[in-house]
Amino acid sequence: MKQTIKDLLQIPIQNQEVSVKGWVRNERDSGEVAFIVMNDGSTPKTLQIVVDFNKIPREQVAPIKVGACLHVKGKLVASAGKGQDREVLAESIEIYGLANPNEYPFQPKKHSLEFVRENAHLRSRTATFGAVFRIRHTLAYAIHKYFNDNGFYYVHSPIITASDAEGAGEMFQVTTLPLQNIPKNEQGEVDFKQDFFGRSTNLTVSGQLEAELMALGLGKVYTFGPTFRAENSNTTRHLAEFWMIEPEMAFYELQDNMDLAEDFVKYVIGYALEHCAEDLDILEKRLLDEEKSKKQEERSPMPLLEKLKFVTQNPFERLTYTEAIEILLASPYHKKKKFQFEVKWGIDLQSEHERYLVEKHFQKPVILTNYPKEIKAFYMKQNEDGKTVRAMDVLFPGIGEIIGGSQREENYEKLKNRMEELGISTQELWWYLDTRKFGTAPHSGFGLGFERLVQFVTGMGNIRDVIPFPRYPKGAEF
Amino acid sequence: MKQTIKDLLQIPIQNQEVSVKGWVRNERDSGEVAFIVMNDGSTPKTLQIVVDFNKIPREQVAPIKVGACLHVKGKLVASAGKGQDREVLAESIEIYGLANPNEYPFQPKKHSLEFVRENAHLRSRTATFGAVFRIRHTLAYAIHKYFNDNGFYYVHSPIITASDAEGAGEMFQVTTLPLQNIPKNEQGEVDFKQDFFGRSTNLTVSGQLEAELMALGLGKVYTFGPTFRAENSNTTRHLAEFWMIEPEMAFYELQDNMDLAEDFVKYVIGYALEHCAEDLDILEKRLLDEEKSKKQEERSPMPLLEKLKFVTQNPFERLTYTEAIEILLASPYHKKKKFQFEVKWGIDLQSEHERYLVEKHFQKPVILTNYPKEIKAFYMKQNEDGKTVRAMDVLFPGIGEIIGGSQREENYEKLKNRMEELGISTQELWWYLDTRKFGTAPHSGFGLGFERLVQFVTGMGNIRDVIPFPRYPKGAEF
Repeated sequence: MKQTIKDLLQIPIQNQEVSVKGWVRNERDSGEVAFIVMNDGSTPKTLQIVVDFNKIPREQVAPIKVGACLHVKGKLVASAGKGQDREVLAESIEIYGLANPNEYPFQPKKHSLEFVRENAHLRSRTATFGAVFRIRHTLAYAIHKYFNDNGFYYVHSPIITASDAEGAGEMFQVTTLPLQNIPKNEQGEVDFKQDFFGRSTNLTVSGQLEAELMALGLGKVYTFGPTFRAENSNTTRHLAEFWMIEPEMAFYELQDNMDLAEDFVKYVIGYALEHCAEDLDILEKRLLDEEKSKKQEERSPMPLLEKLKFVTQNPFERLTYTEAIEILLASPYHKKKKFQFEVKWGIDLQSEHERYLVEKHFQKPVILTNYPKEIKAFYMKQNEDGKTVRAMDVLFPGIGEIIGGSQREENYEKLKNRMEELGISTQELWWYLDTRKFGTAPHSGFGLGFERLVQFVTGMGNIRDVIPFPRYPKGAEF
Repeated sequence: MKQTIKDLLQIPIQNQEVSVKGWVRNERDSGEVAFIVMNDGSTPKTLQIVVDFNKIPREQVAPIKVGACLHVKGKLVASAGKGQDREVLAESIEIYGLANPNEYPFQPKKHSLEFVRENAHLRSRTATFGAVFRIRHTLAYAIHKYFNDNGFYYVHSPIITASDAEGAGEMFQVTTLPLQNIPKNEQGEVDFKQDFFGRSTNLTVSGQLEAELMALGLGKVYTFGPTFRAENSNTTRHLAEFWMIEPEMAFYELQDNMDLAEDFVKYVIGYALEHCAEDLDILEKRLLDEEKSKKQEERSPMPLLEKLKFVTQNPFERLTYTEAIEILLASPYHKKKKFQFEVKWGIDLQSEHERYLVEKHFQKPVILTNYPKEIKAFYMKQNEDGKTVRAMDVLFPGIGEIIGGSQREENYEKLKNRMEELGISTQELWWYLDTRKFGTAPHSGFGLGFERLVQFVTGMGNIRDVIPFPRYPKGAEF
């Protein structure tokens, strides 16, 4: 295998010949020698190249600036320099590609995240985004590993779909009809019979319904795929295209579902702590630096690593929606009228309420259960009180809802009645109802927004900075 | 953890109380007792339940038919029956859900694959599709594991895109414009300024260009995501929505790319052989059975498992396109005019040519390199002969092209010129060209169609049978 900088930083130092390929992070001419700091993405760390002008003429080195790509051959030797135990004494330098300092966007100075985002095609070369995307990879891998090790099967639910799983949410249409001249039928309506699928289709908002079909045969499954919302939300927490993880388990009731969600999210964060220590260090320092300009009360209560360890080491607080409303009503915030939105049984909790519970009251992740059925989806299992459903939301500090799930209604009649009450077509979803008709079983599942998790673990404030090429209103560059 | 049937088949038999949850695969009333065969998806194997009518009245058991879902409590005991070492003596049976034999589609008889496909919402409960989808999971996991263990980072390339990576291929449009009444601008053209992204967007046909951006910062990356083709192909080898794996590596040349492709695909198939032996057995038997009705020359030359082992144990044959053309021209097939399509240098090889090379001439997987530039994409590195590019295709028996890749053109001028020659907008792809302008590096990559791989490993003839809910012309059900 080819040696990466990560490899070169781990092997014994024996004055041996090595070959280094990567991009210049920094360079400095100290008169007799030049120092070139290189990174190749395999590690957050860099490797210093020392160029002796007696061996390699200064003219050859002069055009090498930040962003250039090089192939250096030389000797790996111990370094007396600060902050490094080794360096490479260059014997030859092949320039793969220069980077004109008048044009290359990332010069050795501080750039705003907005500026870096405009250059998303090159940002994985920066220290911050190299760290973010390595952690993103590690979290994705930990998710697959967790489910595989626990007997779940990965299911690819369809992206193009004729159904709307949540019964809500604005969707992107998918079509091959010529937009310039849409064919119409005799009634003057769009003639979807001429469309590729012979019907109106959209991009999926959730793979849950299809995951349920598979769980009711394979037992335990999960999806991990892209989902879409055509909502005109220009916030730091919303994307038009994002990745979602949706486990679905036959024979799991609400309690099992909560146990799984907590165990799962702790495992995944713990895996990142174990495997991304150096990258997390970079991001913890970045966050501390960023927060210096904030007021004390707006800063994170804990540094990044401490927060992550705290979450993995403490049990999540579990309570019902009804208990949560009672806590909010009895809170000093409510009494001092600090909440912007009204608190009463039946409301959809606002971010300020969730954050109060998580950050002020319990000071740890919270799982809320048994929400009013009016504010939850049709497929959730109805409780015997006639008012609530077996829903569960996991709330995280700084993020709010990171997981939403429920036990599913497995009773054919109850499900059908609820769909009819809400005006959801039982004809369109005949296949979904079939699973309750033939060998129905209690089952549960939840959804985790992957980018929210990456935000939590990396401490990045804007969700557009944790996905390589974000999609948002008016934004589809790259 | 909850015990699955897989667990119950592995623990010591100690007449202990166990709990079994799953679906009925078969049932039989032998007078004094009933035998109920159950499966829960955790394993291809089944567990037999013995119901003594002295303990549980026959009336309670009578409605339990194939497809019903049960929760059985009982004692795990050694079995004297054929084909099993254990069974469960039922003490109680809770019926989660019945399955009316007059309505439930999968009765205990042989069903055609077409019939099963029409009931894709329930097919994961069948032995064949349980096996297919467990193997699909295992292959997906092996892919993530291989790349993770080898220092690659998983990258989510965008699904909605404003660019067409291959410069060809029919695409699905994505829009939020009202189809009933498309807004037009003053020139009478579709007013994309009013669309969600403020421009015309499509579903991606490949994540390669974006993977290149990431590789030129992180070093080694891979994508594994859905890709789309709006081609009106009703074949057993095409889907409108399929999953693709696209690794992309900085500092890899064509030779490295071939080495990686061969090592990767052997690892993944070997992983399935190691972890899915029982499922593969089921599918090997199914294939042998299916082929009984075929003529001798249309049958697979090797049984499934032998074929998979053969691929993992033998080096792939590597030769140039030019050498392949010479072999085809010198072949008895060509001399006897058995090829339907003309053979000469410059042609895009047809399936019959590829299959001749792989199945007749070499009788093993083949990697062809250095194709004529006219039949390959703009981004492939140009050879010095001015005629060919550093492309590579991996051809598999029975499947044809399973991997297509190349070394990429890293020279800014050459890439720009080729784009202009082919009429590909250099303005739209400014970000792609930027990577050649700033710190360019030699790099390579390839694409593997995931469903083609699953077809090869499972021996399923129709690609619609290896993805849970296939999408094809006029087909977007479930």
